Amino acid sequence: MSTPQQDELRVAVVGAGRMGSDHVDRLAHHTLRTRVSAVVDVDVERAGTVAANAGGAEVLSSVDELLASGIADAVVLATPGFLHEEALLKIIDAGLPVLCEKPLTPDPESALRVVEAEVAAGRQLIQVGFMRRFDAGYRRLKETIDSAELGELLMLHHQHRNPEAPAEFTDEMVIHDSVVHEFDAVRYFTGEEITNVSVRIGRTTSRAGTVRDPQHVTVQTQSGLLADVEIFVNAQIGYQVHTQATFENGLVKIGEGSEFELTTAGRSGHEIDAGFVTRFRDAYDLEVQQWVDATLHGRIDGPSAWDGYATAACCAAGVAAQRNGTIEHVELAPKPSFYSSHTGSPALT
Amino acid sequence: MSTPQQDELRVAVVGAGRMGSDHVDRLAHHTLRTRVSAVVDVDVERAGTVAANAGGAEVLSSVDELLASGIADAVVLATPGFLHEEALLKIIDAGLPVLCEKPLTPDPESALRVVEAEVAAGRQLIQVGFMRRFDAGYRRLKETIDSAELGELLMLHHQHRNPEAPAEFTDEMVIHDSVVHEFDAVRYFTGEEITNVSVRIGRTTSRAGTVRDPQHVTVQTQSGLLADVEIFVNAQIGYQVHTQATFENGLVKIGEGSEFELTTAGRSGHEIDAGFVTRFRDAYDLEVQQWVDATLHGRIDGPSAWDGYATAACCAAGVAAQRNGTIEHVELAPKPSFYSSHTGSPALT
Amino acid sequence: MSTPQQDELRVAVVGAGRMGSDHVDRLAHHTLRTRVSAVVDVDVERAGTVAANAGGAEVLSSVDELLASGIADAVVLATPGFLHEEALLKIIDAGLPVLCEKPLTPDPESALRVVEAEVAAGRQLIQVGFMRRFDAGYRRLKETIDSAELGELLMLHHQHRNPEAPAEFTDEMVIHDSVVHEFDAVRYFTGEEITNVSVRIGRTTSRAGTVRDPQHVTVQTQSGLLADVEIFVNAQIGYQVHTQATFENGLVKIGEGSEFELTTAGRSGHEIDAGFVTRFRDAYDLEVQQWVDATLHGRIDGPSAWDGYATAACCAAGVAAQRNGTIEHVELAPKPSFYSSHTGSPALT
Amino acid sequence: MSTPQQDELRVAVVGAGRMGSDHVDRLAHHTLRTRVSAVVDVDVERAGTVAANAGGAEVLSSVDELLASGIADAVVLATPGFLHEEALLKIIDAGLPVLCEKPLTPDPESALRVVEAEVAAGRQLIQVGFMRRFDAGYRRLKETIDSAELGELLMLHHQHRNPEAPAEFTDEMVIHDSVVHEFDAVRYFTGEEITNVSVRIGRTTSRAGTVRDPQHVTVQTQSGLLADVEIFVNAQIGYQVHTQATFENGLVKIGEGSEFELTTAGRSGHEIDAGFVTRFRDAYDLEVQQWVDATLHGRIDGPSAWDGYATAACCAAGVAAQRNGTIEHVELAPKPSFYSSHTGSPALT
Ligand SMILES: [Mg+2]
Ligand SMILES: [Mg+2]
Ligand SMILES: [Mg+2]
Ligand SMILES: [Mg+2]
Repeated sequence: MSTPQQDELRVAVVGAGRMGSDHVDRLAHHTLRTRVSAVVDVDVERAGTVAANAGGAEVLSSVDELLASGIADAVVLATPGFLHEEALLKIIDAGLPVLCEKPLTPDPESALRVVEAEVAAGRQLIQVGFMRRFDAGYRRLKETIDSAELGELLMLHHQHRNPEAPAEFTDEMVIHDSVVHEFDAVRYFTGEEITNVSVRIGRTTSRAGTVRDPQHVTVQTQSGLLADVEIFVNAQIGYQVHTQATFENGLVKIGEGSEFELTTAGRSGHEIDAGFVTRFRDAYDLEVQQWVDATLHGRIDGPSAWDGYATAACCAAGVAAQRNGTIEHVELAPKPSFYSSHTGSPALT
Repeated sequence: MSTPQQDELRVAVVGAGRMGSDHVDRLAHHTLRTRVSAVVDVDVERAGTVAANAGGAEVLSSVDELLASGIADAVVLATPGFLHEEALLKIIDAGLPVLCEKPLTPDPESALRVVEAEVAAGRQLIQVGFMRRFDAGYRRLKETIDSAELGELLMLHHQHRNPEAPAEFTDEMVIHDSVVHEFDAVRYFTGEEITNVSVRIGRTTSRAGTVRDPQHVTVQTQSGLLADVEIFVNAQIGYQVHTQATFENGLVKIGEGSEFELTTAGRSGHEIDAGFVTRFRDAYDLEVQQWVDATLHGRIDGPSAWDGYATAACCAAGVAAQRNGTIEHVELAPKPSFYSSHTGSPALT
Repeated sequence: MSTPQQDELRVAVVGAGRMGSDHVDRLAHHTLRTRVSAVVDVDVERAGTVAANAGGAEVLSSVDELLASGIADAVVLATPGFLHEEALLKIIDAGLPVLCEKPLTPDPESALRVVEAEVAAGRQLIQVGFMRRFDAGYRRLKETIDSAELGELLMLHHQHRNPEAPAEFTDEMVIHDSVVHEFDAVRYFTGEEITNVSVRIGRTTSRAGTVRDPQHVTVQTQSGLLADVEIFVNAQIGYQVHTQATFENGLVKIGEGSEFELTTAGRSGHEIDAGFVTRFRDAYDLEVQQWVDATLHGRIDGPSAWDGYATAACCAAGVAAQRNGTIEHVELAPKPSFYSSHTGSPALT
Repeated sequence: MSTPQQDELRVAVVGAGRMGSDHVDRLAHHTLRTRVSAVVDVDVERAGTVAANAGGAEVLSSVDELLASGIADAVVLATPGFLHEEALLKIIDAGLPVLCEKPLTPDPESALRVVEAEVAAGRQLIQVGFMRRFDAGYRRLKETIDSAELGELLMLHHQHRNPEAPAEFTDEMVIHDSVVHEFDAVRYFTGEEITNVSVRIGRTTSRAGTVRDPQHVTVQTQSGLLADVEIFVNAQIGYQVHTQATFENGLVKIGEGSEFELTTAGRSGHEIDAGFVTRFRDAYDLEVQQWVDATLHGRIDGPSAWDGYATAACCAAGVAAQRNGTIEHVELAPKPSFYSSHTGSPALT
């Protein structure tokens, strides 16, 4: 055996909850060219437990402490969303690259402040954790769209189902926690901003708590393309994320089917993922690996702070649309030229 | 050989165009317990050619002549829709059962006049040619809904694609000729009236003439259920009619897949029907057979004149919604109690 | 209503058991241009019950009585196979067309006597009930083979599964009752005779009685083509009949998949038929309709007495192969030129 | 950035051809906890080119030189198979773990000598590159078999297709290069040795050179289970590897279907991999990662030298069966107790 010679990215994971702890495990054991140098959480005991899974990681209790320590080359931010703004502003100030779990921040106003801080800092530091952009199916579809091999893209239809939501899940969370992924997906596939959002709610399941479920969300992009989303967070059947793209000369569907077929009495077919962890495991792994590698090269090529801001604006419009039953315009600040060359489409590998 | 002893329904086919000629062939050669006694068309030469395919059928030039002749027990009406009202009123007056190709009439006002005439006549005589109610997949889905085996039905999603539409196809025809089938399907599946219709039009294909294509239509039923339709009449890929039903405890999809799988270089999969004639051939055959048998027993159990009227009202609302970009309420006259025991759900066989 | 004018084929059904009673129902109520003129069974009470479902059918107790009566233009023979020879010889002698349920007779010697009697009679009278030749998937595959659109056919792989077999099912019945269909299918698809048969038996299910189950049967045709069959009569999962054809330039699979997809907790997929009655219902209906129509025109175009004889010879070889573990040659008498222009491939409609 | 602190496995890749160069790339850039310390090839220029893709790797011209240098903790052996025996004996002698691309050696005699050398060395050093054991579908099926959730495994049916084979491909290569994977798969799935092999060859494609193609191979295991393989190396359609497992209570199919569906004019379906590199990319990556990790812990848990020997014996029997048309017994030396606790089933992750 030997000690390695290549450079490694020293990553601090801030937030030792479920996502943070998953990222520590991923970075420590399943990602090349990186190691976890610190785990940061106000609950230092929790941080300590998680750090124990990444031998050599220090345990710290605050972002301030982390930034003072100089032991990280980059940060993974996995605290609750309402804490993101404060942490991001400090991390930007310190000039560290950061992979920020979604949402960037919970509302467009705070998200815009983060965008402005990044612009002021003069270089891109933030990648937002929209992991679906790293899913193999999403990438194949994006490639098909960009190549124009089936002609122009005309429509997108999404189906997004969870087996069940917690009793306290709300209409707002349907938009902020679930449909936010499709807002980003539509922007990713089309390379355009979403200009309006509407929400229709019809018959709802008796299996939900207070949330009205399912809901039917429609968005439109700058060029007029329509995309809709069937969101059903108490669908019982498992976790499903499908997209169907309609082109001038054909269709593409992703997310259905599989190469494992099971036949038992009276029935043949495919199994459905239990949750997003298994459904998007490969996407999470690839997201983090590509972020590490881009960061080692001084780049950000995943979804940007602007993507975080724009989806926050879509969520605000979506919640208003739920409430008002109208087609809500999405209000966006002018896009800084700073982001103009950034596509947020990581290279296909 | 012998001459048969069972009674046969003597059917006159009015209108010797494409649909009429298909029905003559079906009645003469592929339907039990019936024969074509007359073919009626102002173009008697055309009627003669078609009648030659049904040995023994007389050739007549008008509905009046037909009704005077007494040679038909029942009528299949396959003239253009704008001629239906006049013919139907005469046929009702004569007391003959009639299978009327869709639409009942082109607008809700005239359709209501036909309904009122039937009510005045005191018994159901009209069945409207919504053949999808006789499709095996439609019936299986209807059965699944009615049995509540997957819990309550929550949403319906339809995809309706034609390979290409004539250059003169218009936005109005998208509703009247294509989406009308989904209007009836939603009413059939739910057993409810449609209360509102909206239409969104986004990016459109360069492969169409003046029609804006595709379009995205959403309807809601009395109990609030939402159903949407992706209609794309220049989809290039073939003729596809899919429905996905979302229930409290599961999903059902009909119209995709098949039991014939072809694999060639780089590709495995299913073939797509070329048009509605092949896609719904079995449905047409069953529709006509069940209509003949019900008529021999003095009954109508397929879609009624009321169904024809209600879908005409949906079409009127749909065209307004296309024009106005609003959610248009569907205005219906009070439903005569006359129709109250009629479900329009032909028995599953 | 009127009494019909077209000629009808008067059919006598001999044997009022399950298949016979199905055929009476089919002929009386679901088949054009025919009626059941007699039901024949030694158990006249059983015959009477069945005849009651076909108003006007006479009840007779023997083939002799039937042939003396002159009330049938043609016969459907649905008695147990060991009674076929005697009945067929009499029916041939009377010059009546007959649709004989499989097997023609239980062994090649008696089958050959029937063939010889038909040749002596000077015209084809017998069609054997290999209904799969009328299945839509089988026809599509046959068409693909004959068109050579995928190049030459190289291999056939069959899977044939029943949910469960009676406790008294034997190894011999695996061949005679089940694999006999694949023997005919291989002959139908290739247009060649089978020249040898081998059987391998490996691990067997604990769910069977004395039968060894599953079994793996391989046959070879005159030109050397190999076809194999996985036969599993206690497969539990339902009734499945699949064929995969390997061509020089592609593959075709029939019998899997469907257009009805059901998703419930953790699982999406297709349902499996419960038995051959539902799986091949359309094939039975088409078989009988095409036989009636061909008979009215004085023709036989379905599987012939020669097909019945040749499959009986395959079965004899198959049972020997089960016993001996060897590749058994199939012994066939010279094919009478009488059958040379008969393909046994009913016209595609 | 920092220099890493974890131990890394220093791997020498012997053989700088296609597979060797792939492994260098994989080890250097896509595998954790390892680095390429040397590339060894008699063609040192070729070795140099490949080593340039793994910064810091030395270039050597022989295994002797490598073993003298002390710069490798472990070896990946990717030379042509006929060179394996000599290299493996030296590597065993040096006590280094080795991942040996298949075959272990080209014939059972030399493979047995390698086994005996490993036994004499007193510990397992050799893993053979049967990468399919690391494929997700293979693992799911193995898990289903081992769990007995569908009851006992009764049959295995394999389909193995290549788009085309080189003109010089021979009957022997069909067995040694292609079916060898299924020999290992059957042993992996059942945990048993193969006791006999037979080969049937029927109609063959005109698209092949001198090889007879396709071929149908049947094997049987110690407990009597039958497994068959359709091998078709000029199938034109792409690269396909399917397995269907028949259980007492159900079926499992792996390798068909996918989550990307493409619909174009007249056709919907899945794309087929172009070759084994894409079909088994994830399996190769996992194979190497698990080998690195097991080696760092002083273990071998993938396919062993015994697996290499046993499959060589199956190949010898397979070639004899091709030649003789008989069921050939597979002759194996007694299995050393040394291998008794080794399952060759890498842990499911
Ligand atoms: Mg998955
Ligand atoms: Mg169809
Ligand atoms: Mg079926
Ligand atoms: Mg693949």
